[in-house]
Amino acid sequence: MEQSVKQMHAFFNPRSVAVVGASRRINKAGHVIFKNFADNKRRGVFEGEIYPVNPHEDSILGFDSYPSIIKVPGELELVVIVVPAKHVIDVMKDAAAKRVEAAVIISAGFSEIGNYELENQIKTVAKKAGIRVLGPNCLGVYDSRTGVDMLFLPETRVLTTGDEVIATPRPMRGSIAIVTQSGAFGVAALDYLTGSQLGVSKFVSFGNKSDVDEAEMLHYLFYDEKTEVILLYVEDIRSGRKFIEVAGRVTKKKPIVVLKCGRTKAGARAAASHTGALAGSDRIYDAAFAQAGILRAKDMEEFFDMGKALVMQPPAAGKNVGILTDAGGPGVMAVDECEIKGLNVKRFSEETIQRFERLKKEGKLPKFATNLNPVDLTGSVTSEMFELATKLLFEDHEIHGIILLGLHHTPALQEDYIDRVAKIASKHDKPIVACDIGETEMALHTRGRFDKLGIPAYFSPEDAARAMNGLVRYGLYLKKNKCLKGYLEGFFKKSKK
Amino acid sequence: MEQSVKQMHAFFNPRSVAVVGASRRINKAGHVIFKNFADNKRRGVFEGEIYPVNPHEDSILGFDSYPSIIKVPGELELVVIVVPAKHVIDVMKDAAAKRVEAAVIISAGFSEIGNYELENQIKTVAKKAGIRVLGPNCLGVYDSRTGVDMLFLPETRVLTTGDEVIATPRPMRGSIAIVTQSGAFGVAALDYLTGSQLGVSKFVSFGNKSDVDEAEMLHYLFYDEKTEVILLYVEDIRSGRKFIEVAGRVTKKKPIVVLKCGRTKAGARAAASHTGALAGSDRIYDAAFAQAGILRAKDMEEFFDMGKALVMQPPAAGKNVGILTDAGGPGVMAVDECEIKGLNVKRFSEETIQRFERLKKEGKLPKFATNLNPVDLTGSVTSEMFELATKLLFEDHEIHGIILLGLHHTPALQEDYIDRVAKIASKHDKPIVACDIGETEMALHTRGRFDKLGIPAYFSPEDAARAMNGLVRYGLYLKKNKCLKGYLEGFFKKSKK
Repeated sequence: MEQSVKQMHAFFNPRSVAVVGASRRINKAGHVIFKNFADNKRRGVFEGEIYPVNPHEDSILGFDSYPSIIKVPGELELVVIVVPAKHVIDVMKDAAAKRVEAAVIISAGFSEIGNYELENQIKTVAKKAGIRVLGPNCLGVYDSRTGVDMLFLPETRVLTTGDEVIATPRPMRGSIAIVTQSGAFGVAALDYLTGSQLGVSKFVSFGNKSDVDEAEMLHYLFYDEKTEVILLYVEDIRSGRKFIEVAGRVTKKKPIVVLKCGRTKAGARAAASHTGALAGSDRIYDAAFAQAGILRAKDMEEFFDMGKALVMQPPAAGKNVGILTDAGGPGVMAVDECEIKGLNVKRFSEETIQRFERLKKEGKLPKFATNLNPVDLTGSVTSEMFELATKLLFEDHEIHGIILLGLHHTPALQEDYIDRVAKIASKHDKPIVACDIGETEMALHTRGRFDKLGIPAYFSPEDAARAMNGLVRYGLYLKKNKCLKGYLEGFFKKSKK
Repeated sequence: MEQSVKQMHAFFNPRSVAVVGASRRINKAGHVIFKNFADNKRRGVFEGEIYPVNPHEDSILGFDSYPSIIKVPGELELVVIVVPAKHVIDVMKDAAAKRVEAAVIISAGFSEIGNYELENQIKTVAKKAGIRVLGPNCLGVYDSRTGVDMLFLPETRVLTTGDEVIATPRPMRGSIAIVTQSGAFGVAALDYLTGSQLGVSKFVSFGNKSDVDEAEMLHYLFYDEKTEVILLYVEDIRSGRKFIEVAGRVTKKKPIVVLKCGRTKAGARAAASHTGALAGSDRIYDAAFAQAGILRAKDMEEFFDMGKALVMQPPAAGKNVGILTDAGGPGVMAVDECEIKGLNVKRFSEETIQRFERLKKEGKLPKFATNLNPVDLTGSVTSEMFELATKLLFEDHEIHGIILLGLHHTPALQEDYIDRVAKIASKHDKPIVACDIGETEMALHTRGRFDKLGIPAYFSPEDAARAMNGLVRYGLYLKKNKCLKGYLEGFFKKSKK
């Protein structure tokens, strides 16, 4: 297995790469991919050698072009293949002769449209030569640190107005890995995460998974120090047993959130016609994910929301959630969602209630604040009050996680409450998530500031509750497997929290 | 009842209003409210007379101040009361003597904190004098057309950086009415709708509802020509029978979407401690809403998403949804959510399938496009293809609504596809909703353009499906009650669709 990890490394950090089908025509995938490498090499981000392969060109973007990979000088670790399906087999034979380690086949036109024979031929050549293959019919790899960028979708697009806008963004460096069967959904995820200021370690789209599949990818990411949270999108899983075995090992060290659609009968039928995926009962997937400790998101938004929570906050050591709010209604919304998800929003201990009562008597909290759970600090809340109440909940040993609903509209609340709360949070090892409602400046500012200080902020009370649910589920899983302590040590060593 | 509607009009468009507790101190609610009226009067938006009432001032913001409403010259239609709770009863007695039509009591400190006696005294005075009361403990009214703005939360706030940012926005004119028991949630809703470019007709926060309650508000909005969709937030409903009767009449003319939290046991307990609301079984609410034809949202996001769909698109005449996508996975996500909500995503008719096949043969659609349902136009999609496929689905009589998933990342898709699709949509009376995934420029541009052309666009395939579900549920309700045709006529007369 170790050897396989080393070989997989060629996909993400090759010492040398050839782009077969590199082109000078800017609307060609082979152009965009080669240009990505060339640009990143010039910027000093990509440090390997790069070779365009195209028999019809002498040079591309200032790099000597070769008629075939056989002619590329020296050793070649990786080939990226962007030629029509029928030519791929010949390229693979050359790759075998050249003894490359790995090949990414971007080209489509294989099993996904019924061309099983062609895909099998490729598999045979690859297997015999010991070449690891990603794809075909995939978007390949994007690595935020090494400069490997096989996305053939240009980063920007020019509108008819003449404006150039970001269309397929490359996210900043971070610790979320995206592993996806669907290239289209994968780039949509990059777009989402970039806009949400969340960084990515690696992106890998494996398409038809003729060789490398999700299980092997997870195994590789197990060892990847830059990856702390894995977001996995799959439409089917063929090697069930291997998957559960590998994933079960990974999840004891890093969380995996999965989005697997085709949950309903009609959905499964649609998925089958999309990827030829053998549907299988959705319950089997549910059971497999549960067994492997994978968090299954019920929809796209929960998928991203859980990922965001897990990358920013430690998991919770239990199910008891304390809710802190300055608006009654949203507090109730959060309670509802917590209960639906199986979390406990129970009455605080007598000690905590007494502490709240003292603060109220001292005039440090509003006289009419409710202190059962949720704590409703009412529209009279100030920054100091949020700070005090947060501290109190963090100090209650029966509370395992905190949801803070700070609607910025309350008149006496100053923006500094965010920093005050974050400071309290930094002294404790329980998770906290936040919510402010609204879509104009102050709401965006509030959520952005929370995010920046490491407290994931959400658009709605229910989203915040679902995110907390992810932290609780993962915490309980780690606890059951006696690896919560180790995980937390690692988490706090890595983060500044 | 007609008389009561006329009297209610004083809340939204009074010929004269006194603000009792108006103040020169800028951090006082009485200042902000009076200033809102003064500013809107200067701008020519508010056309009535305005009077500050404050015994300690001679004038406020250039308007003569009066020691009591008794002293205000001429007739007085409306008083807005922003004085401490214990003084409200005297103000109400003056209001009775002055024969005002209506009073909004912003002041808190009544039944919500156990002061039932004080609230009862006010009710007695009001009832005897025939004064209609909104509140106490409410945020009152905001009317986007008449310039009535009782929100005491300033529109902007100055950050420590010195930047002035929008904090509690006043939305543009539109046709959504917000009727809310919680003021805090109400302003959060204004913030959300403003940021989403959705206009509002009226905002009314009724707080403790000592007199005017949700049922009466709905009755008033039944006659309000500017209101087309009602978003109702309630924590309890006391006059159940009256509510169902009134709401049932309203929903045959305009849709009502409700957000009622306290769905779970713990949620109901929290709601009770928040408003003293007698929880009641959530199932009773479910049944009441269903009986009245009210669409109940399961969470905040669905609440806004359904409202947006209903204000932009006609309801659907049946449950059959056609899904059109350029990305397989998101198509399956939409199918799943449709099925979960009880919508049908069934195989198209043979005729439609044949029409798709012809277009594929003619090279007008991608050779490998799937045309069962969803229609997956694949990553090769162009603007023309989306246009053709949309037209085809609109022309299939068995399809009642369309979900279009246009991920902008596909390389050959041009931005003009949005306008092409909108043009097709404008020729048909079926609803269509859209989705693009992502949070950076091109995704925001895409969704914004769809919204602008009257096709509500959403962040995720599931959100789009939930929005379509709102259109289907409402359409089926209208159909059952034989008022779909009339509603559609009215809808298309009002909109340019």
